[in-house]
Parts: sequence; structure tokens; C-alpha cells
Amino acid sequence: MKLELTREYISELRAIIEARDDKTALAMMEDLHPADIAEIYSELSTEESKYLYMVLDPEVASDVLVELEEDDRERFLRALPAEEIASQFINNMDSDDAADVISDLDDAVKQEVLKHIKDVEQAGDIVDLLSYDEDSAGGLMAKELIKVNENWSLTTCLREMRKQAEEVDDLFYVYVVNDDNILTGIVSLKAMLIATGSTIVKEIYEKDVHFVRTDAPGEEVAQIMEKYDLVVLPVVDSIGRLLGRITIDDIVDVIRDEAEKDYQMASGISSDVETTDSPIRLSRARLPWLIIGLIGGILVAALISQFEGDIKLNPEMAFFIPLIAAMAGNVGIQSSAIIVQGLASNSLGLESTFKKLVKEFVVALMNGLILSILLLIYNLAMNQGLALTYTVSISLFVVIIFAAIFGTLIPLLLNNMKLDPALATGPFITTTNDIMGLFIYFLMGRVLYDVFLV
Amino acid sequence: MKLELTREYISELRAIIEARDDKTALAMMEDLHPADIAEIYSELSTEESKYLYMVLDPEVASDVLVELEEDDRERFLRALPAEEIASQFINNMDSDDAADVISDLDDAVKQEVLKHIKDVEQAGDIVDLLSYDEDSAGGLMAKELIKVNENWSLTTCLREMRKQAEEVDDLFYVYVVNDDNILTGIVSLKAMLIATGSTIVKEIYEKDVHFVRTDAPGEEVAQIMEKYDLVVLPVVDSIGRLLGRITIDDIVDVIRDEAEKDYQMASGISSDVETTDSPIRLSRARLPWLIIGLIGGILVAALISQFEGDIKLNPEMAFFIPLIAAMAGNVGIQSSAIIVQGLASNSLGLESTFKKLVKEFVVALMNGLILSILLLIYNLAMNQGLALTYTVSISLFVVIIFAAIFGTLIPLLLNNMKLDPALATGPFITTTNDIMGLFIYFLMGRVLYDVFLV
Repeated sequence: MKLELTREYISELRAIIEARDDKTALAMMEDLHPADIAEIYSELSTEESKYLYMVLDPEVASDVLVELEEDDRERFLRALPAEEIASQFINNMDSDDAADVISDLDDAVKQEVLKHIKDVEQAGDIVDLLSYDEDSAGGLMAKELIKVNENWSLTTCLREMRKQAEEVDDLFYVYVVNDDNILTGIVSLKAMLIATGSTIVKEIYEKDVHFVRTDAPGEEVAQIMEKYDLVVLPVVDSIGRLLGRITIDDIVDVIRDEAEKDYQMASGISSDVETTDSPIRLSRARLPWLIIGLIGGILVAALISQFEGDIKLNPEMAFFIPLIAAMAGNVGIQSSAIIVQGLASNSLGLESTFKKLVKEFVVALMNGLILSILLLIYNLAMNQGLALTYTVSISLFVVIIFAAIFGTLIPLLLNNMKLDPALATGPFITTTNDIMGLFIYFLMGRVLYDVFLV
Repeated sequence: MKLELTREYISELRAIIEARDDKTALAMMEDLHPADIAEIYSELSTEESKYLYMVLDPEVASDVLVELEEDDRERFLRALPAEEIASQFINNMDSDDAADVISDLDDAVKQEVLKHIKDVEQAGDIVDLLSYDEDSAGGLMAKELIKVNENWSLTTCLREMRKQAEEVDDLFYVYVVNDDNILTGIVSLKAMLIATGSTIVKEIYEKDVHFVRTDAPGEEVAQIMEKYDLVVLPVVDSIGRLLGRITIDDIVDVIRDEAEKDYQMASGISSDVETTDSPIRLSRARLPWLIIGLIGGILVAALISQFEGDIKLNPEMAFFIPLIAAMAGNVGIQSSAIIVQGLASNSLGLESTFKKLVKEFVVALMNGLILSILLLIYNLAMNQGLALTYTVSISLFVVIIFAAIFGTLIPLLLNNMKLDPALATGPFITTTNDIMGLFIYFLMGRVLYDVFLV
């Protein structure tokens, strides 16, 4: 049942598509989950995928479309007329998936597709959803849900739920509303199972229910669902009327994207790219960071050129330039990564900025001392000159402390200024710390060479 | 209903604890979710938390204990006798939470606690769970679930489910087993809702159901649940008998941990630490990477010392050491990050290693060309000597290509050797690339200075 996608499988399938052998093609994909079929699609050309779509059952084909990577989907939909998109795919989708698919289309095609949706209620739902920001709770929610009035008996509920259930794929909770459609609570299916038919919803429902407003950002939704271990979260409008629900599988993507985004920023990749993207796209995502790095490098070169005389006199000063620069970068990245992660997972606690700085200072003091002494022992053992030995160790110590403080302070400052703290990681902080670190190193060298060579 | 944790709230609570004012303390925490109370606890001392535990309803207190950060929990449990842990907390927990809590205890205490659990069935479940690796499907699953026999009628099911439901917190799916307790499928509650009482389970259950074996690693569980958008996943033994189920909220943690782990590795932090940890713990998590960086720096210094004569003659060569080193590092990290993420999210597709290398090569060629030309223009404009100008630009170009290839190859090689590819990011790749980059730079310098100064 689990698909092991192999190159053999794909070439076999390609041959079958080439031969236009509908039956065998269908047989090869029967019993596969739409997510598996989507994985197969990403290996095929647009023409090949199009053929497979025509072979597949429309309902399965719609599920596959939802599971596709965004760029594969766009490429594929561009090859289809609006009417076909509406009748073949959108009609079989939940409102949130339909809205996601449609929102990626060009404006003109979007209108065309909406016009061709037969179910007016569904079209209305989709238009509603399209009006929300894609990354807000409104954009993440589905409108399909099961709700009951708080005054109904369980018998009435069951009758109404049977009607509503046809539209809903997964049924986890039943939402309770009052006569004004204001969300008042939830009934778990477990509670319904245990109670008898004449029980009134009011008697068994839970009042304390987590919910979000349509304008809550996706990250906040993720934090709430993660913290309270929720599987579904209802979404309400500004006066509390129940509009939809967000399921955890959509939020898992938000959580992964968020975690990956910080990692990508730290690695100097500016937008969401994957190995399967085109070289131009890959290049564009990285070049800005490299240019920042290049400018940084030029600034560092300008700084060092101020110490040309020192280097001419004591060329061995140059040996440890990379060490000082690398350690400043490493310490800065460590300090900033831990703050960025803490901010992302909201686990920084109530410690004040000052207390955090003091703690980082203590950590830097310990690490700096250990590393400087190790380096001192090495250089003494290698019989490097005393001036160089002390210059390198003392500046390493100072640089580590500065880098740790910068690494902590900058993401916190950015966060206070409502900028993405992850900006502080990656090439940006490395460059700043390089400049600061080497400036300290050469200054220290000037002083200590004077002392030791008197 | 949503808690905004403030320093004022905490100091108010502290004053109330100080005054031993049970009623007000309880009132302050009434209506709060256990996850919120856990957040409050992490701000309090062990003594203060202990007092609050005694005030809280035991069931709520148990939920809070489960929600606590691991180190807060250990600190707290160490202050309690085994008997109290068993009777006050474990008795109120699901088997998987109980096993998690108990597994953190010292061996002697563990045995003591197990002995004091009154419910023999629960104790058995916990002992079973403790036998699995914490990060495997067995360690992640809970034994509480609702199951029905495939030959039962819906009416029988409902009667049996009412009995079973008392033990289960959340009810999403009902598992179907045959007479040998072999998992044969699931019935959704939706299907049960729509069908009539005399329907036999066999007629309405879904046969194609995803499941994992107890020894499946947590990351595989996460990949399956994420790919197929599952909320619960059943766990079976080697012959297919149903043993338990994993819910998505436990997997969200695995997904976040996994994503954060790669980021932490890339940032040079070796274990799971947070800003709230002690300085010693923070220092220990970072020192190993810094020592690797230090050793790398020493190797680089030894390399550069081989070119001491060149530097003495042309001290301006030293200006661009940080630029070359930093760019080699940046490019290497970019290339490796994209591979590491692709491996983690299983989205590398079927492209062969060779094809990936070719693509990286093309990207590096484009970026390298652009950056080298930019640097060339700058250096020409600044009237740097021609020898230096060409040395820097040509070596930058070569270095970028090498760094991209290394950055792609090393994580793929590590992965093939069943090592964590994330090892290739962070200080390790930076150091290798520094050495390679500066070697190319100085060699190039030696050649070009000869050419231009003839």
C-alpha cells in the first residue's frame, strides 16, 4: 500500500502513457493515495500529467491537484481551459482547497473559473474565502463544518448532522451555536456517544473553547493549536459568528514552513526554493545574500587595508585572520539562532532582555576563556612569537564576548521593531561580526606588538 | 480566556503563594488551560510550583505536569516521593503521557512509581510502552483507543464504544479488527452517523488504512502523517495486531523538533537547548562546535603560514582573506542547506546525484560569474593593482564553484553513509571550505603575481 517511488516505476508508467494504454495506467495508480499520485506527477511532463488526469476518476484527480506542489499545479492549470478547471476539479473540492487552487490563477482566469462553478453556494463560499489574506486564519479555514443549535436535543442533532455530514470529509467535533449563529462551544462526539437521545446540547457541551478571528495570522493559529494540542480550531468573525474551521493538517504545513524559513534565512536563501526548482530560480534566491556577503567582504578588506603597515612588518598577523573572523561568526550565529528559535516557538519566557544579555555574557565568558586558553597553549607549544600568541588569544576572548552580545541583541531589536528577527542570522550577522572582530584583532595587535617588542 | 502572561501576573501570584492564600491562587488559575498553567510554572521556583500543585485539582495538576518542559518536570518530580507521583499524577494520565513522565525518572524511582500504580491494567500498559524506544512509533503511541470487531452490527458497536469511550480523551476514528485482533480497517464516525443500526461494520469500513509498526522511527511516522494529512495513525506489531494509536499533536512536536534540530546543527548548537536553560548547559551545547571551529582556524593559520613570504611581499593579499573565506562558507552553507532540507522533508524527488551536481554547478557558475565581475569592477575602480584584482576575482569564481559542489556532495554522502546530513552544515563545512578557498586564493596569487610583475 505504501508507494516506493522508483525510477523504474516512472519509466514503466511513461511507456504506458506513450502507448495511451488507459487500462494499465489506471491499474498502476489504483489503490494509490492522491498524495502518492501527486509525487508521481512531479516527475512527469505537463503533457503526460494531462493524459493521466483524463484517465483518473475526477474526484481522485481533484484530490491529486490539491496535493501537488504549487509550481507543478500552476504549470498544469495553465494548460487547461477555465471551464474544465471548474467542472472537473473545483466542483469536487472542499471550499478551502478550491480557494487555494483558484487564488494561484491569473485574475482573468480566476473570474472565468468562478463563473463556471455550478454550485452557487460553493462559489459563494470560495469568493468569501478569497477575500481573506492567504496566510490568515480566514485564508486557512474551510467553511464546511457540522454545527448544532445549543437548544436542540441529541436526537434532533443526529438528524441534522446526518444532513450536514455529507459535505464534510472529516468529522471530529460538532460546533454549538446560539440562535444568532454565535459560537458558544463544542460537543465532542465522545460526549454524544455517552449521552442519551433526549439530552439537550446545552447540558453536555463544553463552553471553554479555543477559537480565532478570521484576521489572526497563520503563525498565531499554529501557536495556539500547537500549545493546546488541538486538531481543529473554529474561526469566527469580529462579533463571534461561526464561519469555518481550520484543521491541523493545514497547520502542520505552516509550522514546517515557518521552521524552514528561519533555517533558510540563516543559510542565506531568501525565498522558498527546493532542489527541484530551475537553476535560475535557485540562483535568484541566493544571489542577494551573496551580494550582501560580498559587500561585507569588501568592507572588511577596506578595514584591513588600514593595517597594511602592521601586516608588512608582521605578516604572521595574517595567519589568524580567518580564525578570528570565523569564531566571531560562529559565536554570533549560535547566539542569534537560539533567540530566533525562541521567538518563533514563543518559548523565551518572561526573562527581561537585560537578564538574557547577562546570561549570554556569562556563557560567552566561559566559552571565551576556554577557547582562548586552548589557543594560547597551542601557540606557546608551537613557539609562535609572544606578541602574536597574546594578540590572538586576548582578541579571541574579547571578540567572542562582543559577538555573543551582538548575536543576542540584534534579533531582539529587530523583533521589537516588528522586523523578522531571522534577518539577523546568516550573512548579515557574520559580516558585522567579521568587521568588529578583525578591528579588535588588529588594534590589539598594534598595542601588544608595541609592548612585547620594546 | 487566552492568557497573556505578564510579569505583573507572576508577581501577583507569587505574593498570593507567599501568603498561602489557597482560594485566591485557585481563582487565578481557574479557567486556564493546563498548557497555560505549565507556562506559569516555568516562571516559578520548585517550592512555589509544589504549593500550587497541592492547591490544584489532581486531574488538572496531572495535565499540567504533562505540558511542562522536560527539565522543569524533572526538577519538580525529584522533590516528590514515588508514591505521591503514582497516586497524584500517573493515575490520571493516558498511558503514553504516563510512560513519557516515568521514563524521565531515575531507575530506582521508576520501579517505585510503577509499584504504586493502583490500576494493574494501566501499569501493564505503561510497562509495555516503556519497552519501546522513545522516538519510535511504539514510544509515541497511546494504548487507549476504540476498536470494534468487523462482524459486529452498528448497534453492538455503539454499546461497546460507550464502554471503551470512557478511557479515551479524543475520539476521531474507530478501528476495526478481526477475531485475532489484526487491524483490518477503520470506520469514520461520519460513516457511522450516516448508516443505520443494523449495518454490519464490514459493510461500511475502509480497508485501505495507513498504519505503522512499533519500530518505525518517529521521523517516518511524521512523514506519513504529514504526507497523507492524517490526524491519527494506528500502530501494529510485527504480525499486524492493533496495539495503539499516535495522534497528530505528538507528531507536531516531532516535526518541529526535526526542523529545529537541523537549524541548530547548522548554527552549531549540538543539543536541544533554550534561552531559559542554565549558562552551563548553554555553554556545553555550543563549546564542541566552537572547538571544531577553533581547530579549523588553526589549520587555516597553518595553511596561510606556508604563504608568509607572499604576504610579506604583497601584504594587500591579506585584505581579501576574509572575503574569500566568507564567500566559500556562504556558498557552501546555501548548497548544503537546500540538500539537508530536501532530505528532511523527503522532497528531493528522483533526480540523480549527478543531475543535482550539474544543476548546482550551473547555479554556481551563474552566481560566481556575477559576483566575480562585480568584484572586478570594484577593484578596477578602486585602482587596486592588477595582480591583486585578477587574483581575487578569479579565485572567488573558482572558490564559489568548489564550495557549491562540496556543499551538495557532502550531505548526500553523509546520508548515503547513514549519518545525519545536517552534520555537513555549520562549522564543519565552513572550515573545510575556508581551507580549500584560501589555498586556491594563495596559489592563484602566486601564479598571477608572477604573470603581472614580470
